Amino acid sequence: MTVAGSEPVTIDHDALCRELAQRAKGASRVLATARGELKNAWLVGSAEAIVVRSREILEANAVDLAAAPRLDLSATAIDRLTLTPRRIQAMAGSLREVAALADPIGEVVEASRRPNGLEVRKERVPLGVVFMIYESRPNVTVDAAALCVKSGNAAILRGGKEALATNRALHAILVDQLVSNGLPEHAVSLVPVIDREAVGRLLALPEYIDLAIPRGGESLIRRVVAEAKMPVLKHYRGNCHVYVHDPCDLEMATRIIVNSKAQRPGVCNAAETLLVHRGVADRFLPIASDALARAGVELRGDERARAVVPAMTPIVASDWDQEYLDKILAVGVVDSLDQAIEHITRHGSGHTDAIVTTDLESARRFIALVDSSAVMVNASTRFNDGGELGLGAEIGISTDKIHARGPCGLRELTTTKWIVIGTGHVRGE
Amino acid sequence: MTVAGSEPVTIDHDALCRELAQRAKGASRVLATARGELKNAWLVGSAEAIVVRSREILEANAVDLAAAPRLDLSATAIDRLTLTPRRIQAMAGSLREVAALADPIGEVVEASRRPNGLEVRKERVPLGVVFMIYESRPNVTVDAAALCVKSGNAAILRGGKEALATNRALHAILVDQLVSNGLPEHAVSLVPVIDREAVGRLLALPEYIDLAIPRGGESLIRRVVAEAKMPVLKHYRGNCHVYVHDPCDLEMATRIIVNSKAQRPGVCNAAETLLVHRGVADRFLPIASDALARAGVELRGDERARAVVPAMTPIVASDWDQEYLDKILAVGVVDSLDQAIEHITRHGSGHTDAIVTTDLESARRFIALVDSSAVMVNASTRFNDGGELGLGAEIGISTDKIHARGPCGLRELTTTKWIVIGTGHVRGE
Repeated sequence: MTVAGSEPVTIDHDALCRELAQRAKGASRVLATARGELKNAWLVGSAEAIVVRSREILEANAVDLAAAPRLDLSATAIDRLTLTPRRIQAMAGSLREVAALADPIGEVVEASRRPNGLEVRKERVPLGVVFMIYESRPNVTVDAAALCVKSGNAAILRGGKEALATNRALHAILVDQLVSNGLPEHAVSLVPVIDREAVGRLLALPEYIDLAIPRGGESLIRRVVAEAKMPVLKHYRGNCHVYVHDPCDLEMATRIIVNSKAQRPGVCNAAETLLVHRGVADRFLPIASDALARAGVELRGDERARAVVPAMTPIVASDWDQEYLDKILAVGVVDSLDQAIEHITRHGSGHTDAIVTTDLESARRFIALVDSSAVMVNASTRFNDGGELGLGAEIGISTDKIHARGPCGLRELTTTKWIVIGTGHVRGE
Repeated sequence: MTVAGSEPVTIDHDALCRELAQRAKGASRVLATARGELKNAWLVGSAEAIVVRSREILEANAVDLAAAPRLDLSATAIDRLTLTPRRIQAMAGSLREVAALADPIGEVVEASRRPNGLEVRKERVPLGVVFMIYESRPNVTVDAAALCVKSGNAAILRGGKEALATNRALHAILVDQLVSNGLPEHAVSLVPVIDREAVGRLLALPEYIDLAIPRGGESLIRRVVAEAKMPVLKHYRGNCHVYVHDPCDLEMATRIIVNSKAQRPGVCNAAETLLVHRGVADRFLPIASDALARAGVELRGDERARAVVPAMTPIVASDWDQEYLDKILAVGVVDSLDQAIEHITRHGSGHTDAIVTTDLESARRFIALVDSSAVMVNASTRFNDGGELGLGAEIGISTDKIHARGPCGLRELTTTKWIVIGTGHVRGE
């Protein structure tokens, strides 16, 4: 129980977290009715301030980077943590992009005049307070704050301890801009303690926090789901499949599996398993394995795949359920479309699954029976992304069925309110 | 641990509940792609069969009614349990109404062609399996099954033990109609054991059950929320307010408070508290208390209300938080619109709150700042209802902010799936 940057002291977590959450709730009430132009002025002002005050941010980032070896961070983690003037420009760009998006608040989702003359409408309103728990990349601090405030919500941010100094520098700038734009300073809060206890305390305050969004490894997410007393928006894993059907365009199939697997192997919408119809396995697997090898991908094949390409590592049963997040791909041969669907139903994570085929009826059956947040036909799994699907920026991808499924943008950070206007209407029997 | 209608035996709850849930999940997969005309044929067929087989239903109901004294049911509970030929006709009518509603499945919520030519659309798909836990009224068995199946979901129903024989008779008819219409018989299941343990076991199976909907007293709902490992759609209480502002039409205000309180006092959208602006209290409270007294309502007033109408019972602090569900009304006088909003924010349940006023700006402020599932202006709180708001039948009212808020109809029993069609699209950097 320590405050980073100071000597170990005892902290009254309960009081601290309650106060933090209470203040966020208070700020959210003001934010709920704030004009769109004020929220946009904050976004644009923050974009400018982040560039103007780059030196502060880079100095803070240097503190985090200096501490990184002590935290045993991997090279990848250090890369994600590292800020450069170019990355700071990119953060500013994200803020401007969010400013340019339509304000979801006040959008009328449904409206009608009832037969009795009652005017009813359902309007988008903010959720209230969103608690975001994430790891490593400091740009999440800026993106999450931007999306929450734009959608009228107060944000409580809890980044990883490896990025605490950087996150504090970014947070200070965002708060300065809140104040100078006449918005409540507690609209964006950073959890000041970095131990795990504070997260647990905050997750126990559904009276103040309306939604928790964990982003990171599966163990972090499972812990948040287990402890949260409020709803959680999340996906556990992205065990995404590409199924190459017979008939299909083999060249297209190769391009799609290489892109799905290797374009960015460390993300949730990257493919982890390739399933191939037996009718095309003999022709497709040699081409695909060459292309994947050139992209640096290790293949782990079942017996039938290895009969075609013996160089593959033999697969073990647990591979089918693994999210490698690395340049490794499980490969299996199936007898039919339905066998592929069955495999995906059993081993998939409901995130993103793709079919490559020229046959319309097979594509339709795959779409109908694969129960995932996004189903792709003749396209890379990597397209399950807020920007690619037209939502603008996203705060994460949900594999839940409740509230929001797939990429979550501004609308997914809202709820609705029924507004009913009468002229003295009362109900009869 | 007994099976009703047989001798006490030991039940393997775990195996029983798992099998029940597994079968429902299997049925839900078939139902997900069932044509709308099949689901409607089942609804209309069930409506006919319920009337044709009324005698079976009434005989089963007689068994429940005979057991009612042993269960210590109140007169109200016995009334809700009692079926008559007319009530059976009403159930059949509900089934036909659901058949006439638009099928939500396949509805395209969003669609666009992206700049790169990718075709993307977001379609409504079923949730999967819905577990409904409710009390007393046997018509809920029929209504819940109808809404779930129409929206492509399998339903697991767990009614109260006081209605078990009646629910079994209704369930048997619904299943016969599933089978004769070529739909999976496990699309509608009735939990065969009536003890509480089965509910807990089912609530621990998120791999099979996608949503739990408890309907009943607050303690039932709190128990379901505490135990459920899957999302829960619910409201705990309906502590609804009517605020009579200055200026307003006093005659209209009287009509609205009488209707909100007394038209059906036992339901969640009935008013429990009347707040009156001090500027109209002297004129309004005498008229309103006369009208409410004629409707049989007991008034519990604060000091300022009793200064105008001394006949009111003195209120105690806990009254403001109570859901009377009875002909009792808490009455208070406030100094301002904002004081009324503050009172509602503190004591309300986020269900339904109404303002009566002729002043536009006050109405707008009340709408903006009262954070409830429905906000009424110059209309009775009783209008927060699926039928009244144009949703058709409802499966319940949610005060949650996630997924669905307010009355939940067919759409609220669905989720969405992104469908992405490319021509070999891959992502660049």
